Amino acid sequence: MSFIATPQSMHFEELLPLQSGASIRDYVLAYETYGTLNAERSNAVLVCHALNASHHVAGVYEGQPRSEGWWDNMIGPGKPVDTNRFFVVGVNNLGSCFGSTGPMHTHPDTGEVYGADFPVVTVEDWVNAQARLLDRLGITQLAAVLGGSLGGMQALAWTLQHPDRMRHAVVVASAPNLTAENIAFNEVARRAIVTDPDFHGGHFYRHGVVPKRGLRIARMIGHITYLSDDVMNEKFGRQLRHQVLEQGSQDATVPSGGASYLYSTQDIEFQIESYLRYQGDKFSEYFDANTYLLITRALDYFDPASHYGGNLTLALARATAKFLLISFTTDWRFSPQRSREIVKALLDNRRRVSYAEIDAPHGHDAFLLDDPRYMDTMRSYFDSIAKELA
Amino acid sequence: MSFIATPQSMHFEELLPLQSGASIRDYVLAYETYGTLNAERSNAVLVCHALNASHHVAGVYEGQPRSEGWWDNMIGPGKPVDTNRFFVVGVNNLGSCFGSTGPMHTHPDTGEVYGADFPVVTVEDWVNAQARLLDRLGITQLAAVLGGSLGGMQALAWTLQHPDRMRHAVVVASAPNLTAENIAFNEVARRAIVTDPDFHGGHFYRHGVVPKRGLRIARMIGHITYLSDDVMNEKFGRQLRHQVLEQGSQDATVPSGGASYLYSTQDIEFQIESYLRYQGDKFSEYFDANTYLLITRALDYFDPASHYGGNLTLALARATAKFLLISFTTDWRFSPQRSREIVKALLDNRRRVSYAEIDAPHGHDAFLLDDPRYMDTMRSYFDSIAKELA
Repeated sequence: MSFIATPQSMHFEELLPLQSGASIRDYVLAYETYGTLNAERSNAVLVCHALNASHHVAGVYEGQPRSEGWWDNMIGPGKPVDTNRFFVVGVNNLGSCFGSTGPMHTHPDTGEVYGADFPVVTVEDWVNAQARLLDRLGITQLAAVLGGSLGGMQALAWTLQHPDRMRHAVVVASAPNLTAENIAFNEVARRAIVTDPDFHGGHFYRHGVVPKRGLRIARMIGHITYLSDDVMNEKFGRQLRHQVLEQGSQDATVPSGGASYLYSTQDIEFQIESYLRYQGDKFSEYFDANTYLLITRALDYFDPASHYGGNLTLALARATAKFLLISFTTDWRFSPQRSREIVKALLDNRRRVSYAEIDAPHGHDAFLLDDPRYMDTMRSYFDSIAKELA
Repeated sequence: MSFIATPQSMHFEELLPLQSGASIRDYVLAYETYGTLNAERSNAVLVCHALNASHHVAGVYEGQPRSEGWWDNMIGPGKPVDTNRFFVVGVNNLGSCFGSTGPMHTHPDTGEVYGADFPVVTVEDWVNAQARLLDRLGITQLAAVLGGSLGGMQALAWTLQHPDRMRHAVVVASAPNLTAENIAFNEVARRAIVTDPDFHGGHFYRHGVVPKRGLRIARMIGHITYLSDDVMNEKFGRQLRHQVLEQGSQDATVPSGGASYLYSTQDIEFQIESYLRYQGDKFSEYFDANTYLLITRALDYFDPASHYGGNLTLALARATAKFLLISFTTDWRFSPQRSREIVKALLDNRRRVSYAEIDAPHGHDAFLLDDPRYMDTMRSYFDSIAKELA
């Protein structure tokens, strides 16, 4: 079993100006810390989260043995990011739905629930909010900022907004911006949510309903893009649902005879359908619809090169951190090519960069899984950071 | 301008037994023919359609100059499939919504609109219905059966169900079955339709509504999977909608400065979003929701190898036709690998197979476009079929 984690929260009265020109005040950030800040205050590691994650990065909550944090395999005592050596900070981002101020909370100016009026937040805004939390925690310079996917974008943004406040950036399964296809998938998910009659223009809280139909569709689309075609075939193939129920078997190699189809357009026929519906149902029970819109938009908007005529090399010139980038061969959502673009731009700037392209079958999801080469790469990199501390 | 096409329809009183065990009677098939059946009745080519297409394969309708058939670039006088030499037959499949009997028509047993009670139809059922139409047209043996995507599955099924009634099969951008990922995309689209409150369990006709929200989502998902990541980046990139409106430019290379975002989660920000919404809106105006479910299910169910323990070589042993297979390098919906599986199984059976893998950037959509190598391959193959006729 993992160690016990304790969620905390910090209230911020002062105005946080946002990239959009709007601002937010009187907000709370939920966070967790693991390990001990050393006397020099030099061993802090900030972990940034992706769409469906939170400040609960590692450990379990008291009395809840199955409540492991989302990166519990990576972070903890003796783990690749070793909390016996590092002071790890996880922060839930503004606009999320796991404890920090978000669309389901009350707007201090109106006394009404924000709903669709929650301001649009960007990766850069999150980084600024995280920096203020670190100020309060007395951390002036981070040993590293670490994140996967959208979390990797935050780590990259940190190197541009606060180059003097960090020594290492670890950017996993990420990209310098989204492709048109990425944006397209986000947009379909958003349309499914926004056009759900229970969305009520984002003010569904007032109506006592939740746009679950839209959230389910959004999550199903997400799941398809997190997995590789190969791993889906291996895990589900063309396996029929009723065969699995009858045989108690998850073996996708059992041939599915045409004769045993139910011949239905609306019932579950294939096991992959059952999996996706289950994931969609589960997600719609706890995830906030406005948060989904906000976080996918933050993904869409992130594009540091846009301020430099699309030139990523110019955009990354400000970054002074040392970098570790990791990508996964079967990740078609954030493909290795996208990581290589970052590597190239950093090398153009003569920055110190390590890059590992891990041959893993699991698609984008691989960044959360236990591939030994991936784990070893992370362990070895954080070992070297720890040596700098000594 | 293309030649004038004239839609026709044929009524079938007699029962058509379906693969599911159900049957359908008293149905109509819409069809078109182009060119002239020769005296030997040996020059007929059947063209099978995919999801969103019909019997209107080529030509234009009288007085409607912009009503070109969906494969008008491929089929017509002097075109790769030359209607000066071939008698081409296009048939709208049962369950579709373009003229043949489908869910929006009246069930002869009940006098009510079929709706969700329209029987589930399979690729094999369509082939049997097409064969009956050809009987009526006096065609005992086809020179070729030709189709792309789902149409290619029908061409493949023809070689198994009626090996003696055809000499060539031309299977473009197709597959021997759907992968788990393909089924997953179909399932998300179906869930979007079925969970639209206007779907009413498939009996929306009675309520005077159409589940347009679901159809829009389904179509948006479809469009993403028809295109390649590369062609989407080239065509849309990260271009902002308002830049296009202001500059009257479709140039995706114009850099999009972060400063010019609208910062909205619900409004159109990127040009790709505008494109997808437009495609979704258009589709929801004319496509039938129950047809969408039926046709995607037919795709899911097709799997000739399933009757042979998953062994495609055994499954294709019955096929005696000569084959042309074509795939497109950037097609990730029906990838070249899937066509190669068919090629291998046919070669295992010592059948005559030609195979062309076209290096085209357009993804699955390429099978409808004008790549010269693709067109030349088709022209040359149909030239050789024409020589056999002489």
